[in-house]
Amino acid sequence: MPDLTAVRLARAYLLRVAEPPAPAVADFVTRRGPLEAAKAIRAGECSGRVRDETEARRDLDLAQRDLDEGERLGMRLLIPEDDDWPGWPLLSLELAASRGVQGVAPPLALWVRGSARFDDATAQAVAIVGSRAATGYGEHVAGDFANSLARQGVPVFSGAAYGIDGAAHRGALAARGTTVALLGCGLDAGYPAGHVVLLDKIAETGGLVVSEYPPGTPPARHRFLVRNRLIAALSEGTVVVEAGRRSGARNTATTAGALGKVVMAVPGPVTSAMSIGCHELLRDAGATLVASVEDVIETVGRLGTPRPERVRSQRPTDVLGPDALRVHDALHRREGKSAEQIAAESGVPVTRVRGLLPALELDDLAVRCDSGWRGKAGR
Amino acid sequence: MPDLTAVRLARAYLLRVAEPPAPAVADFVTRRGPLEAAKAIRAGECSGRVRDETEARRDLDLAQRDLDEGERLGMRLLIPEDDDWPGWPLLSLELAASRGVQGVAPPLALWVRGSARFDDATAQAVAIVGSRAATGYGEHVAGDFANSLARQGVPVFSGAAYGIDGAAHRGALAARGTTVALLGCGLDAGYPAGHVVLLDKIAETGGLVVSEYPPGTPPARHRFLVRNRLIAALSEGTVVVEAGRRSGARNTATTAGALGKVVMAVPGPVTSAMSIGCHELLRDAGATLVASVEDVIETVGRLGTPRPERVRSQRPTDVLGPDALRVHDALHRREGKSAEQIAAESGVPVTRVRGLLPALELDDLAVRCDSGWRGKAGR
Repeated sequence: MPDLTAVRLARAYLLRVAEPPAPAVADFVTRRGPLEAAKAIRAGECSGRVRDETEARRDLDLAQRDLDEGERLGMRLLIPEDDDWPGWPLLSLELAASRGVQGVAPPLALWVRGSARFDDATAQAVAIVGSRAATGYGEHVAGDFANSLARQGVPVFSGAAYGIDGAAHRGALAARGTTVALLGCGLDAGYPAGHVVLLDKIAETGGLVVSEYPPGTPPARHRFLVRNRLIAALSEGTVVVEAGRRSGARNTATTAGALGKVVMAVPGPVTSAMSIGCHELLRDAGATLVASVEDVIETVGRLGTPRPERVRSQRPTDVLGPDALRVHDALHRREGKSAEQIAAESGVPVTRVRGLLPALELDDLAVRCDSGWRGKAGR
Repeated sequence: MPDLTAVRLARAYLLRVAEPPAPAVADFVTRRGPLEAAKAIRAGECSGRVRDETEARRDLDLAQRDLDEGERLGMRLLIPEDDDWPGWPLLSLELAASRGVQGVAPPLALWVRGSARFDDATAQAVAIVGSRAATGYGEHVAGDFANSLARQGVPVFSGAAYGIDGAAHRGALAARGTTVALLGCGLDAGYPAGHVVLLDKIAETGGLVVSEYPPGTPPARHRFLVRNRLIAALSEGTVVVEAGRRSGARNTATTAGALGKVVMAVPGPVTSAMSIGCHELLRDAGATLVASVEDVIETVGRLGTPRPERVRSQRPTDVLGPDALRVHDALHRREGKSAEQIAAESGVPVTRVRGLLPALELDDLAVRCDSGWRGKAGR
């Protein structure tokens, strides 16, 4: 049984030294164990890609300061040695990396705010992501989907950005459900500025705010892209609600696909620039169209039950065969007609007309009268 | 060489006697020829399914009257023996019928208004269909697609109903293109009442109004369904613009699929009941998503040219590798930084930082200054 405090310290050091994703370091840590790996890197006793990934910052040993600072700020460093480490969903990253997918090395540890167990929060989670420059339609759908998923106990993951991400987090919060925000900067970065209160609320009400970046790390474009692999890996499937032609949400979707996760997209008006990315995902990238939260649940297979029979309003005439439909169409509501007349108007042989009329009567679609038969609309 | 006048008369008789689709009669006519088939049916010298399909109306010989009446009303009866009969696209019906698809027997003849050659009007046509209870969005898209297709010389087929159909015909007319309306009633039925002027305009400006129903045949629900197979067969592909959960447009799409034609659907807001049918076609029935008229043309393969490269606006940083992006992100616009500082902030080894900075300078993304390097947005 390793000393968890020492291991946590070693991983805090590694997390600051190696800018994620650091495939060689991740591999090195797996082979040597975090204590030995940290020691070797600190001493410069490593070579090749491990050296490349650590050379720039290996002298930057802020591990104890980071852990102290994290504690002061209400964060903890979750490490693979902890029993609520989400090892199962993160395995998708290791598998993809071993298949040669680039940029998907698993995280060395994760900074976390919030008291929920991480493994519970990732149980069959769904990610809802999309454009920052969302439309009212997109924010409505994101909030609505997140709310319904949360009500059904599905954790909702997103990236805390303005637009779709924020709407998803808020929708889940409104249902008092679990929502998890994955950031591309330190948890204390106060970014995005307009979502500081939202992130506090997530952490305080059973959700989690998570990042692999140490306290003090500023947001940067490359970090959002790197962060996207965690959103993709930690959820069962990713729903893109709105995405322009260029959108980080598409990067998350592409990564989710590369990890073997389900990629879903919400369609929108073809006249909206904010749906172009979704339509391209549906048309060219094999994403599954989801038009409702039932579609999402069915697609990720959460309930493990067969698809519920969709409610279809039926007209009484829907069950009629082609000849019966022709006979029914030839009937008049007020005026009676003879079987011969009906045969001539419908083109159905009179013998068959004579057989069909009583059947229609049983279905309440025809009624006998003095002058022959009249039509009815049915029940 | 058969006497075309006699053949036309025989087919006019058959068209009124056998309510379409009449698979046994179609087959009987193919085997015996129209003259002999009409003679046998008139005399009651037929049996089995041919008898069933003709028994109710075989005495109803209005052929000469129909032809006279048609001429008076400005219609002609187009028959397979005419040289502009659209035999090639209608072959899809014969093939499907021979594969056992129900309700797709080819027409025995077609009543036509308008002076265009039918075979020209069906050359690589596209059908645009949809709900009668369309929204402004749906009518806008239908009109826009039809207009663009017509401008590019693609004939636009539809069913002359209110809503999407009407918008499609009007869009094509506005581009002075060819549009063809397929009716589920006689060409003189004045149906739908609000589209009488539209149908006149189609027939008078190079388009066609077409029906297999003789003059005087009233509209009926089963006839619209039967008519749908002609819309599906005569076009290369069918675009469903808006369709509710129950919509005749979906029937046309299903038939098009059964005929081996391309089925396309336009997505819309998931909050719109009028897009449910389209989303179901996309999700469950393998329809191709089309968000633009370019998508339609590409899907039906009209131009036979490779898909045009989509215009993607690129940021100068899009071409950077992951390390270069990290270095660029670490640069500041106004404040200079040393290579060591940049290495520590980006996590990229300083030797690599030193190599990347001049490359970024060449790309106009970094600039040397007294205190080291500053960032630039690029060209």
